Formats: sequence, C-alpha cells, structure tokens
Amino acid sequence: MIVALKSTSTNEQIAHLENWLKSRGLTVHISRGEYQTVIGLVGDTSKIDDDLLSGLDIVEKVTRISEPFKSANRKFHPDDTVVETCGVKIGGGNFAVMAGPCSVESREQLCNIAEDVKKSGASVLRGGAFKPRTSPYDFQGLKAEGIELLLEAKALTGLPIVTEIMNPAHIDMFENVDIIQVGARNMQNFELLKELGKTNKPILLKRGLANTIKELLMSAEYIMAGGNEQIILCERGIRSFDGYTRNVLDLSAIPVLHELTHLPVIIDPSHATGVSRYVKSMAMAAAAAGADGLMIEVHNNPSAALCDGPQSLTPAQFDDVMKAVEKIRMVI
Amino acid sequence: MIVALKSTSTNEQIAHLENWLKSRGLTVHISRGEYQTVIGLVGDTSKIDDDLLSGLDIVEKVTRISEPFKSANRKFHPDDTVVETCGVKIGGGNFAVMAGPCSVESREQLCNIAEDVKKSGASVLRGGAFKPRTSPYDFQGLKAEGIELLLEAKALTGLPIVTEIMNPAHIDMFENVDIIQVGARNMQNFELLKELGKTNKPILLKRGLANTIKELLMSAEYIMAGGNEQIILCERGIRSFDGYTRNVLDLSAIPVLHELTHLPVIIDPSHATGVSRYVKSMAMAAAAAGADGLMIEVHNNPSAALCDGPQSLTPAQFDDVMKAVEKIRMVI
Amino acid sequence: MIVALKSTSTNEQIAHLENWLKSRGLTVHISRGEYQTVIGLVGDTSKIDDDLLSGLDIVEKVTRISEPFKSANRKFHPDDTVVETCGVKIGGGNFAVMAGPCSVESREQLCNIAEDVKKSGASVLRGGAFKPRTSPYDFQGLKAEGIELLLEAKALTGLPIVTEIMNPAHIDMFENVDIIQVGARNMQNFELLKELGKTNKPILLKRGLANTIKELLMSAEYIMAGGNEQIILCERGIRSFDGYTRNVLDLSAIPVLHELTHLPVIIDPSHATGVSRYVKSMAMAAAAAGADGLMIEVHNNPSAALCDGPQSLTPAQFDDVMKAVEKIRMVI
Amino acid sequence: MIVALKSTSTNEQIAHLENWLKSRGLTVHISRGEYQTVIGLVGDTSKIDDDLLSGLDIVEKVTRISEPFKSANRKFHPDDTVVETCGVKIGGGNFAVMAGPCSVESREQLCNIAEDVKKSGASVLRGGAFKPRTSPYDFQGLKAEGIELLLEAKALTGLPIVTEIMNPAHIDMFENVDIIQVGARNMQNFELLKELGKTNKPILLKRGLANTIKELLMSAEYIMAGGNEQIILCERGIRSFDGYTRNVLDLSAIPVLHELTHLPVIIDPSHATGVSRYVKSMAMAAAAAGADGLMIEVHNNPSAALCDGPQSLTPAQFDDVMKAVEKIRMVI
Repeated sequence: MIVALKSTSTNEQIAHLENWLKSRGLTVHISRGEYQTVIGLVGDTSKIDDDLLSGLDIVEKVTRISEPFKSANRKFHPDDTVVETCGVKIGGGNFAVMAGPCSVESREQLCNIAEDVKKSGASVLRGGAFKPRTSPYDFQGLKAEGIELLLEAKALTGLPIVTEIMNPAHIDMFENVDIIQVGARNMQNFELLKELGKTNKPILLKRGLANTIKELLMSAEYIMAGGNEQIILCERGIRSFDGYTRNVLDLSAIPVLHELTHLPVIIDPSHATGVSRYVKSMAMAAAAAGADGLMIEVHNNPSAALCDGPQSLTPAQFDDVMKAVEKIRMVI
Repeated sequence: MIVALKSTSTNEQIAHLENWLKSRGLTVHISRGEYQTVIGLVGDTSKIDDDLLSGLDIVEKVTRISEPFKSANRKFHPDDTVVETCGVKIGGGNFAVMAGPCSVESREQLCNIAEDVKKSGASVLRGGAFKPRTSPYDFQGLKAEGIELLLEAKALTGLPIVTEIMNPAHIDMFENVDIIQVGARNMQNFELLKELGKTNKPILLKRGLANTIKELLMSAEYIMAGGNEQIILCERGIRSFDGYTRNVLDLSAIPVLHELTHLPVIIDPSHATGVSRYVKSMAMAAAAAGADGLMIEVHNNPSAALCDGPQSLTPAQFDDVMKAVEKIRMVI
Repeated sequence: MIVALKSTSTNEQIAHLENWLKSRGLTVHISRGEYQTVIGLVGDTSKIDDDLLSGLDIVEKVTRISEPFKSANRKFHPDDTVVETCGVKIGGGNFAVMAGPCSVESREQLCNIAEDVKKSGASVLRGGAFKPRTSPYDFQGLKAEGIELLLEAKALTGLPIVTEIMNPAHIDMFENVDIIQVGARNMQNFELLKELGKTNKPILLKRGLANTIKELLMSAEYIMAGGNEQIILCERGIRSFDGYTRNVLDLSAIPVLHELTHLPVIIDPSHATGVSRYVKSMAMAAAAAGADGLMIEVHNNPSAALCDGPQSLTPAQFDDVMKAVEKIRMVI
Repeated sequence: MIVALKSTSTNEQIAHLENWLKSRGLTVHISRGEYQTVIGLVGDTSKIDDDLLSGLDIVEKVTRISEPFKSANRKFHPDDTVVETCGVKIGGGNFAVMAGPCSVESREQLCNIAEDVKKSGASVLRGGAFKPRTSPYDFQGLKAEGIELLLEAKALTGLPIVTEIMNPAHIDMFENVDIIQVGARNMQNFELLKELGKTNKPILLKRGLANTIKELLMSAEYIMAGGNEQIILCERGIRSFDGYTRNVLDLSAIPVLHELTHLPVIIDPSHATGVSRYVKSMAMAAAAAGADGLMIEVHNNPSAALCDGPQSLTPAQFDDVMKAVEKIRMVI
C-alpha cells in the first residue's frame, strides 16, 4: 500500500502518521522528495480502511498494491477450490453445465426440460422460483411452489438444483436447494451475503452489471468471512453503451479471476447476450478461455416462456451447444 | 408500442398475433411492406411484458413509445408531488437540504453536527446507522444504536431524520424514522422495495451506479404499486471510465426526471464526486439545474470520520455551501 | 423506420409530413391512436437523415428498424467477403493471423520476429511505423524508415505487411503496404476514411474504444462508399469501468458482426487485454467464437520494447498460442 | 511515481533497475518488504514512458502520483490562462458564449442568426463548415464556402468565429478563422494536434466521448508541445449506458479541470444532451459550477436544420437562456 502525502505536510504530521501505521503492525518506508513524500506500507494491509486513510488531512492519494480480499485470494490459497454437491464437482478441472428454464412455470415444463438437459450432459438443473423483474407488473415467479417443483424434478432426474434467493428472510425455504444463487442485482446486498455466510450451502455469486472484479471478490469475501467457503463465481455480462447484445460478456474475467482467486468461475452466455442465437459461440468461447462451467437457459417453447424467452435455447439447440462445447473441452 | 415482424412471418401467424393483442384490449395497426411488416399498438401497454413479446417466433424487434411506468408518470399525474414530513416539504417548488455525517459515530458527534447544519439552514438530518460497505472488514455502522442517536438528535434540534435501510427484516426498527433511504446498491432489491410499498413513510430512493432513468422509475413504481406514493428520487453519480471523481454526477437527470415524473428529485454531490472540494460547485450547479433539494455529508472532523471522510465537509464549509446555494435559489 | 408523433400534432401537419415522406419514395403507413399517432416507413430508408426527421416540430421519437448501412449489410450481400493480398485470404472460412511487434524498432528486431512468427504459422506481418501515443513525449515510431524496414522483412519472408496510417497526407508512403490499418482512435476520422475509399488496398478497420457496432459499420460504409470494398473489421476491446484489463474484449461482436455484415472480423487480444499472460486464453476464445483471424503482438524482448511491452508475447509464447488456436480451429 | 516489483525479483535485478532510473535523473527510494519491494521515484517523471517501465520483467505495477502533462499543469503555471481573440477574452474570470448554427447552411441563415445571438450577448459566432457525420450519406457541410460565409457574418457583426477542422491538409483554409475547433472524434487525432501546435491560433479542444480528463490534458499537451499555448478545453458529454440524453454531461469536469490546469474550460450543453429543452438548465448549471463559457447551438428554424436540429434553440429561446445564465453569473 502506497500513501502519497501532500507537499504541505509537516515533519511532525508525518511522524504522527508513521507511528499510527506502525501501531497497526505495518512496516513503514518513507521516501522524501522535493515535491512529494511517499509512504510504502508492507504487511497485512487487508484490514486497513482506504477511506479512513484518504480522509487524513495530509494524504493526497492512496494506492493499493495488494488486494483487500483475503479468504478469496489465491496468494494465500494457491490450490483451486472444488465445489461439490450431490456428486457434481465444479472447479479444479471439473467442468459443470447448469441448464434449465429462466422461470419455473409448471411441473410438466420443468420435468421435461430437466430430462432433456440431463440427456444432453447438463449436471445441474437451474430454474427461477423467485424472479427479480425490473417491472412490478411482470411475472414474479412461482416462489415456494417453484422450489417444490424443482425438488420434484431433482427426484425424477437426480440432478442437483440451483435457484435464486432475493430475501434473507426466505432462507428456510432454501433448505433443500443444492446451490443458492445470488443474482447480479443483489451482488452487493450485503445483508443477504452475510446470511449466506452462515449456511453450509454452495453459493453461486453473479457479478453485478457494473461491478468490478475486485468488488465481486469482496462480495465473495463477505460470504467467506461468515465461514462458508463454497462459492462459485459467475460472469454474466456487464453494462455498456451498445445495444446489439443486452450486456457485454467479459470473457477476460476468466483468466483474471483464475489468477486472483482459487474459486471456480462459470459463464452465463444466455443472460450476457440476451439473444439465443449468440449463446453457442459464446459458450464455446467460454470453454476455450478456461471457464469451469456454464449456465444456460433452456426452454421447451421459448416463444411462450413467461420470462426471458428471447435468450432461451430449445432442448435440441442446447444439445448442439453441448456437443460443440464438449469438442472444445477435449482439445484444451 | 411498435412490433417489427420478421420478413418470414406468414399471414396466418400475423393474424394470430393480431387477435392475441386485441384480446389484451389494445388497438392494433398493421403496416405491411415489401421487406418488413410493422405492428403499431395503441392503448395501455404498461402491463405488456416486452420479453414475452420479443420471444415470439415472428417478432424481430419491440420498441416502446410510451413508458412502462404508470404511477410515477407525469403524463397521468401532471402536478408535482410534494413530500412532507414533520413540516418539511420537498418538491413542487420546496427546496430541502439533508445534511449530516455519513455514519452515526457517537451522541456527541451527531448532536453537534445536527445543531451546526440546522443553524446553516438544513431541514433534514442525515446519518447512516446501517452502512453498506464494499469490504466486510470495514466499519458497518452502529445499527439500532445509531437510530437511537438519530432520534436523540431529532429531539434536540427538531430536524426530521433520514437513514438507510438494507434489510426488509429491519423495518420495525425504522418505525420512528421520518424518511427511509434506499441506497444505490439496493435500488433493485425488489423484496425491500415491496416491503417499503406497504409503509406510509416517505422513501428516499437513490439511483444505482449503472441504472438507467427508466429503471429508477420502475423501482419507484415497485414502491408505488404497494400504495406508498411518497417518494423522493436521488441522483448520486453513475459509474464511468474516469477516476478523477468517484462517479460522474448526471445533472441532466434533473430536467429529464422532471419531464417524466411528478416525483421530487434531489442531488447528492458528496457521494457523486467523493471529494469534498468539488461539493460546493456541484451543489450550486444542482440548484441552478432545478433540483428539489440536496443531500450533503457534513462531519465535524472529516479526517477522523469512520467512513467516507474525503467527501465530507466541515460545518464551516457546509455553511459556505448553503450561502452559495441560497444565492442561486434566489435568482431562479 | 418508425416515427412517433407528438399528441399535439394536427391533421394538417401530419398530412404535410406524409406527403414529404412519399416524395422521398417511401411507402407510408399511419396508425392513429387516442394518445399517439405512429408512422411506419417502408422502403429504402438508408439515406433518410434521422436528425432531420427528429428535428421536426411534430415528431416525438424516430426508431430505425432497418440499418443505415448498406454496402456493408449482409442483407444485400449474403455471401462472405474474402479479402485477399499476396495470396493470403481472410474471411469466408479462411483464418489469418497477423503478428509482429507493436513498433518497428530496427532491421534486426523486425526481421528476427518476422522469421519467428512465419515459422509459427502467422500469415501477415504487423508492425507500427507511425504510432499514436497518448503522450507527445512518448516514442512516436520510425515513420517512413519503419515502412522501409517492413518492406525488407516482407522481401525476406514473403509475408505481406500491415501497418497503421494516421494522416491522409501520408497515403503515398503506403503505396507498397499490403494492408493499411486504421487505428481505434481514428475510426471516426472521416477525412482519412474517405481517402482510403479511393485506394484499392485492403483496409484493417479497428473499432474505437467507445464506438458501437453500428458506428463501426458506418465507418466501413465511408470507405465502401468511395469504392473500396476490401475491409477487415477488428475488435480490440472497449472502454469500461474496471481496470484489471486495459479494455474489455467484446467477443460477442463476432457473432453479431457475422450476422449484420459480410466483412471478415478479426480479434486483437493483445491491445484488448494489455497483458501478455491473458492473450492465449482470449486468442483461443476468439477462434472458438468464430473469428476470421487474430492480430497478436510479438516481440523478441518484451521487457525492452519501446512501446506496449507488457502485452507482447515472446516468439516462444506466440508459438504456443498458435498451437492452441490451431487445435481449436480443427474442432470447429 | 511508484513501481511495485514482483516478489521474485533478485537483488541484482533491483540494483540494475535502480541504476537505470538514477541515470534518468530521478531520485530513487527503495522499500523492501517480506512480500513486496516498492520503488518510489521522485523528480521529473513526465518523460518516463509508463509502458516501457511496466514491460520490465521484474515490475508488477506502475502507479503515477504526479501527472504526465506539464505545459497544461497548474502546478507549474498557477495563474489562469486567458485566451484572447478580436478583443474577446475567455478564462481568468472572463465568461464567453459561443453561439450559432450546427452547420452553416446559407448566407441568409447565418447572418440572421449571427445578428440575433450578438443581440442576446454572445461574443463568438460558431458554425460548422466541415461536418463530421456518422453516416457518409448525411450532409457533410458547405466546406470552403461555409468558411467564406462565416467570414461574411463576422464582417457584418464583428463577432469572431469558431469552426471545426477535420484534416491537417485544410489548415490553410482556416487562415482567417479566429478559433479553430477540434471535435470530440478527433481529440486523439495526433497528426492534427501536432499541426495545430504550429499555428498561433486559439484552439477549442473538445473532450472525446470516452476520453478521460487526463487524456484530454495530454491532447492539449500535444498542441502546447508545438508551441501554441492558447487552448480552450470543452466538455460536451461522455458516452454512457442511458439513452434519455445523447451523452452524459460531466459537469464535475469543471472543478476538476480548474484544479489540474490553468486552461479555460467551457461547456457545450447542446451536444451533451442532444435535446434543446434540456439546454437551459444545463447552461445555468455550467455557469453555477464555474465554467468559463458556453457553446450553444442556435438555429432560426430548428425543424428545418440540415443537421442536429433537435438540439438547437431558436433565437428567442437562446435569448431566454442568456438572461438566465446572466443572473447566475451575477451571484457567483
């Protein structure tokens, strides 16, 4: 951590700051120049509050060299985390595809899709029971009933299930859910993250629309600080200025995250592009770039889906994507 | 609402769609061209789900002409909403300044600042009891105790108080709070918005870092759909590519929002810039652009603030800002 | 093209507009509703000026259904364009890798790299003679001498060369250059594009940092309107809010562009990420997503490169990338 | 300037780098820590190439504390630059409004507008002769004839003129132009900037759509490095994700630029918002925030303007804006 001081700082002020920093257990190196004095801090700076330091009268700029996340940091945990549920492994060379409808609509719909995606090689069933929708007038999901239907589809197919939570008060309803998803809009819903830190369930944490990679890792850190280290990170597109795709899929997040953290990283090309005909090429690209898995929307009748129809694949299209991804996986 | 159809659509498909749309109570106008057929929908389209329509096989593109928000829409409520609490009015020509520390830290700190900002002309006291922080290792607020201290400062000064809620489960603790704030990170925490729709408290709704103006209004619509129409909108900077200010303050949101909605609009120059020495000019600009109020951080000792010190003004600086804003208000 | 009219429009005004539109050769369909009248325009709208139409008193909003680009539009030219130079083909199933140093530094440097990249399978040699640098104090390229050295390396290896032009006045110096590059910063330097439209050279057109896909195609249209249809499009990262990579590589631009245009699309993972250790995974992802080629920086001694060292691969690293990309190409 | 080294750096490598840095005239301070060694550089680092340094094998990260621009830097030139042409002063407390049509269309149009805007208090006449248009099929300006008409309007009214250059080869045509404008799309057209550095004309340099404030200042530095120090900076909106305004006007750029540079800063609310009815509030806000001037589009018949009609004010609306801005100016 580097602290550049204002040129107006007095020797007394600098000495005062130096002592305070040393009292926090840090080694302090001071470089004095004609125009600028710079302090280098060495040691565990992850619990130093940048804002507090920046707020000091004599400080011009604070720059972090090391990252403020610790449990999620690969530097301190060099080996890949492998998340495991119902025999399915994600991360550390294990590739998993989560597929299913955006929303759970009915028993028949869900069970049919579940059987189809299992046949094509998916290892986790996804389906929204609680749906975050921009408009209060749009379909909000089947809620508790949706979770029941997911559990029925699990009983039928053996596929573990992943579904989204939106309210810390709902956590009891998720008792039998295998992987709990935190959606992009709730990535910084810290109250929800803290609650999930107390569970022992794998958490699928989606990156927010305009959140940095560092913020994503800090949100993972919230969950890990509570004791739950089974986290899967998911990139699903970031907001940009162009409208041809719903968001911009940031595939370089894969190598960047693999470098910074030991947690597995999956890609959701359906939400990222918002257009079903772009899903295949982005799924193949994600596999080629080293993703640990995919999350893909599949619907037996996308034209009649109650939500996000334009981005859903039919089971036949999904089967085609799985074959293409499999070929990529074999050569890397 | 305009629906452009794919050139491959058959007459039968088009007739089928036409009938379905008419059954939703809409007037349907069809323009057939050599390369493209276009359907114009007239009537109340606010409850039509864009995604559902886009998902139909024959649809190429859906364009909304009218807005999907209704309760917040000025077209249907031409007069300005005036939010009122403890005798303080906001909107419809009434200008209100909310000031106070980022975090409530102690009784002495809060009461001193409350008296100072009241003297300078603030009409609402702000102060964070629950603090959303990017890092789990940073100070998270005094919580319930913070609300108690705010109520003490209210008793002392008579200023109504505004403070942020982060969890629907905390709503009982906010019983005596005058204005409940929804922070930028929770603008699309729909579960929270729905709960707030059931209260009869004024809500201060902050725009998310990368949320469009339409999304802000849809979030207001969530609260209003529950029956609570006392909403104050707040622009506090959007995320961009430059780092000289923390965010980019979008002051053009003021005339845009005043055109689209009857709800009052205030500006938070402290969070937007993140730098106390830019607060004055942005506060003056906001007043000149027609804002209905301001939210400004004031701390008796910014260098020692437990959170967001760099953006806080001292009481003396705040007094100077208030005098400058007052001059602008007098000429517009 | 859809024109929504203001609710205040009179019948006379609407009839006046209708006649004017018909006089431009368009078929006009008018849908009148209680709150809104909408005009659908069918025919060749590519030469209608949106701004002119939006500026009319009675117009509320103009929405294009069809694209304003024509020569570049796949609708009118369904077959892939194949750009060819010195026997190298790009597009229509032909994959080409352009490799070489960011800047041409010396004969020895360039010739060594050229031989190395040829051996690894590159088919075009890249190298900057004129360098656009943010700072006037940074190295600006060897200019004319750089082009001479590129031609020497071409004579030695047989590889055609690609290098960037920054000034229409320099065009004579590019007489023997095989592919002329327009850099991201000059994507909307329309004077330069017009000059290049008069040449018969293949043009490599890079997408600007914050330009939409439509704007990229309109810039291609500038060149094509002059008669030069040999254009290769290049995605090289767009500007975003995160700093872990220099830009965000928008790989979904590959399927989107392949749908909208018949022109070949290549990817530059070196400039997009700005970090050499992320180049391999992004090159593989680009190949998997269906790119028609790659542009990769290679330097014999990246640590001593006069420009963009951190993103350059060594020849050995480049060879490794080529082998990985080749494997991906074989399975798609 | 701070250089963080990789933990794998050897003492020999560090000593080698230290010597090289000292040979560039810098004072070097080295802080060695258990996990990280950090080098602080003090002295004139403006001519150190960040890329070169980042490319070294042992370097992990380079952070600039001081700015890489020098001639434009207020630290070295504390007094405001006042740009002067034909008796009109801009900067250092002098407020100037540049007004006129987006494009010069005819003698009558231009002369009428020039007389109108002069009457309302404008001190410079703007008008486009060369127009950068996204589409090659849109009106491109009257070119040389447009400049002639501007000079006629100047002769008639005495107002100095400002108009945009797009090609270094056109510079002779601008001999009698008073202020030469560089448009947003050409902000990093370095060849053009270098040519303008050789003239003795005031330059109006507009910020690019996605350019940082630092990049804007580096472009000013390009002109200043050539010897021309008469530069006016102009903020005209940055690209964002929302579509209610064409761009987002970044008014906080005013206090930021005033802090970083001595050059005058003006605001163009017409291009920023793209909507004439938002121009007044943004012009007032700009004045309140301390801008040194404004650039506003005025057209006698916006509905018939050949370009950018929707954002142009009528002369009567402009007169109203000028009165409102004048009131703001009087109180600040």
